[in-house]
Amino acid sequence: MTFFEKIVISIILTSAIIIGISTFSLPVWTEEILYFFDIGITVFFILEITIRIKLEHRYINFFKNGWNIFDFAIVIGSLIPFEDSQLFFLGRLLRIIKLLRIVSFMPELSRMIYILYNAIPKMANILIPLFIIFYIYGAVGSILFSDINRELWGDISLSMLTLFRIFTFEDWTDVMYETMAVYTLSWMYYITFIFLTSFVLINMLIGIVVDEFIGSSEDKLNNRLDKIEGMIKDIKNRMRKDQ
Amino acid sequence: MTFFEKIVISIILTSAIIIGISTFSLPVWTEEILYFFDIGITVFFILEITIRIKLEHRYINFFKNGWNIFDFAIVIGSLIPFEDSQLFFLGRLLRIIKLLRIVSFMPELSRMIYILYNAIPKMANILIPLFIIFYIYGAVGSILFSDINRELWGDISLSMLTLFRIFTFEDWTDVMYETMAVYTLSWMYYITFIFLTSFVLINMLIGIVVDEFIGSSEDKLNNRLDKIEGMIKDIKNRMRKDQ
Amino acid sequence: MTFFEKIVISIILTSAIIIGISTFSLPVWTEEILYFFDIGITVFFILEITIRIKLEHRYINFFKNGWNIFDFAIVIGSLIPFEDSQLFFLGRLLRIIKLLRIVSFMPELSRMIYILYNAIPKMANILIPLFIIFYIYGAVGSILFSDINRELWGDISLSMLTLFRIFTFEDWTDVMYETMAVYTLSWMYYITFIFLTSFVLINMLIGIVVDEFIGSSEDKLNNRLDKIEGMIKDIKNRMRKDQ
Amino acid sequence: MTFFEKIVISIILTSAIIIGISTFSLPVWTEEILYFFDIGITVFFILEITIRIKLEHRYINFFKNGWNIFDFAIVIGSLIPFEDSQLFFLGRLLRIIKLLRIVSFMPELSRMIYILYNAIPKMANILIPLFIIFYIYGAVGSILFSDINRELWGDISLSMLTLFRIFTFEDWTDVMYETMAVYTLSWMYYITFIFLTSFVLINMLIGIVVDEFIGSSEDKLNNRLDKIEGMIKDIKNRMRKDQ
Repeated sequence: MTFFEKIVISIILTSAIIIGISTFSLPVWTEEILYFFDIGITVFFILEITIRIKLEHRYINFFKNGWNIFDFAIVIGSLIPFEDSQLFFLGRLLRIIKLLRIVSFMPELSRMIYILYNAIPKMANILIPLFIIFYIYGAVGSILFSDINRELWGDISLSMLTLFRIFTFEDWTDVMYETMAVYTLSWMYYITFIFLTSFVLINMLIGIVVDEFIGSSEDKLNNRLDKIEGMIKDIKNRMRKDQ
Repeated sequence: MTFFEKIVISIILTSAIIIGISTFSLPVWTEEILYFFDIGITVFFILEITIRIKLEHRYINFFKNGWNIFDFAIVIGSLIPFEDSQLFFLGRLLRIIKLLRIVSFMPELSRMIYILYNAIPKMANILIPLFIIFYIYGAVGSILFSDINRELWGDISLSMLTLFRIFTFEDWTDVMYETMAVYTLSWMYYITFIFLTSFVLINMLIGIVVDEFIGSSEDKLNNRLDKIEGMIKDIKNRMRKDQ
Repeated sequence: MTFFEKIVISIILTSAIIIGISTFSLPVWTEEILYFFDIGITVFFILEITIRIKLEHRYINFFKNGWNIFDFAIVIGSLIPFEDSQLFFLGRLLRIIKLLRIVSFMPELSRMIYILYNAIPKMANILIPLFIIFYIYGAVGSILFSDINRELWGDISLSMLTLFRIFTFEDWTDVMYETMAVYTLSWMYYITFIFLTSFVLINMLIGIVVDEFIGSSEDKLNNRLDKIEGMIKDIKNRMRKDQ
Repeated sequence: MTFFEKIVISIILTSAIIIGISTFSLPVWTEEILYFFDIGITVFFILEITIRIKLEHRYINFFKNGWNIFDFAIVIGSLIPFEDSQLFFLGRLLRIIKLLRIVSFMPELSRMIYILYNAIPKMANILIPLFIIFYIYGAVGSILFSDINRELWGDISLSMLTLFRIFTFEDWTDVMYETMAVYTLSWMYYITFIFLTSFVLINMLIGIVVDEFIGSSEDKLNNRLDKIEGMIKDIKNRMRKDQ
């Protein structure tokens, strides 16, 4: 890690700590100091990214690396002014997004995001069937229960949010008892939903992860056994010639 | 995927989106449009399935495939009229069931259902002992606690529903504190239940899944080692003959 | 399975169904029928166990099988009269215990209990450290918080029950916010407890189960490799003699 | 285990039981007995540790073992007087800390702590990304929601505690519905948080644990295969020389 990178990381970490501190109730003048500090960081980031672009032989090379584009977008994005009181929140949120630059400076973090990124297609195998179950139960729920509690079952999006709540077992019996007062058998809706989603989730999740790890370990073993088998075959061939 | 299949899939997906939209509060005339759209889909499905039957050399071949029977049952089922206001819900639910036809058109989905279907016998090894525990605790619970709270412990079916709630840790302490006010030692009922069910569930679940994956990987390795062992035996036999 | 065993199993299952039915509110005369039915089952069980003892060459052989002792104890236990209204519950509970006889008649169930029984020592490796953590946190909790809420933290047994509740994440924030009103930093007590117990539980649990399965599969592979290694050594020795 | 160690362990266990008993409401005189018993244990521990130091050739050797330093610190720490009513709690807590000495006397426990201690670096791989997610969501949460509920979202530390609560699914919908009343789309904040943290947790956790176990079992297999491969190479070399 170069000296320059160390400076950038320490500025990002300082920025993170200051954002944390700024959430506590502080006198107004500290908010102003934070405001100027934030401008300072933005200026520093613009300089830093300009230098890094200049260091490339051709400017276009800089944008061939995904993390550089990520960095560049964050810095450019933080230049958009949000002085309007309505968009004041957005300005404060942008300060936080700048923290994400730390990812491109710490190899462990960017490697981890790379791993997680590669796991997404496998996760999709879990999420698509789960989404279908959620969608169908959501449609059934909003047809059957929307008159019982409009806030929970009013439309399919509310129903799916309620189903996600049930999925996490969060006060799901309160939801169930409310509908059971009207439809006595509605417990079947909840129990089948919980069974189906748990079943799909557990089966797929353990399946995918264990498969991956055992698969890779199996491949290595197979390669070794291929080699040993080849060597034994050599010996047999030699013996045939000898005879 | 043929052009024809693509049309069927896009009609099913459109149907799914429309069912989703129809759960939001909409003006009455949109409900009517949805009604006619639904008739359109039903007519299309009848045509589609008639064509697929006609394409077979013998009609009976069509019904030799499980997914075709599944498709046929859904289309025939959607012809039943539910104009009666009481059965109005059933009519709307049937529209949703028609969405399930998507499964027979997407090979990934039907393969996944096939995998889950094959996992059922293994799951039964978990569910049967769990059911016995639920049944016995349900009977004990409704004998001991039915006078404390009839809604939770009134009969064995309510007790088992309450136990399922405890199984998911959903406000289980509220249930426990209520009975502990009468029977101080009733916490033992809940703690033993939670331990027993968690114990059975975790042991069996991890056991079955890990066993399956490691078992299949072990079988492959054993086959390879069988082959290597056979080759070495050959070499030994040859050497004996040489002497 | 002999015809005799089939009769016993069907009587136990009938008994289970009747116990289930009897938890629903029924007219008084049905309760009386159930009472006589229960006497009938008890008489049948006495006859059945007497026959099985008689069939042995020596009576003592019957008691050499653990399941026979289990059966015998249940049948003898069900002879104890509980006419006293105070012990009326016990009489009804004994009817349920008789259902456990099914275990000794279904080989899958008794094999499963055998597996779970063997898993207890391994589970003890998890439960002992967990108990130590619970005990120490329970003592600390009852010293610090007993004045805040006597029902939750009154003594070490109540504290450990409350900690078990926190362990299951059941309304644990309600408990925390109550003590945080007095000791602002008491969230550290809860967070460290949750981290420690989750950490110990997950580490140990996955460790033990995965270890067991991989261990047994590794042993088999090692045995095979031992054999192959032995055979190759034989070949080398033979070659040395040849020279 | 020496006789001396058995005495120390039984005194620690007695001490643990007495601390447990002392949390129940007892008459004042029992509290006094416990006080003198505690002094007795402290005196015993000082004697015991003095003897163990004397037994070493050089005193400094005693402090080369981590567990001895741990023991020594606990015994010295328990000498600090806490008669002041404000620090009275601390005195009672110190009695509990003395129980931790049991760890250095039971080899299974100290081995387990060693294992857990070694697992910390691997756990850090999970905890650091989780902390970053918590920190960023905490900052965003306290900016967006602090005006809605100061107790839950007042500053970044409260926000992170609230997020930990959501992480455990504890009444998280109550928190969500409160902010959804102001920002309708705030469910996205909660759902993305739950997905991200679950995703990171599950991926990393299973990854690390399974990897470790399979890795170690793979290493052993590789060593065996190395040996077998070497032996076969020997045979081939010998055959070449023969020709």
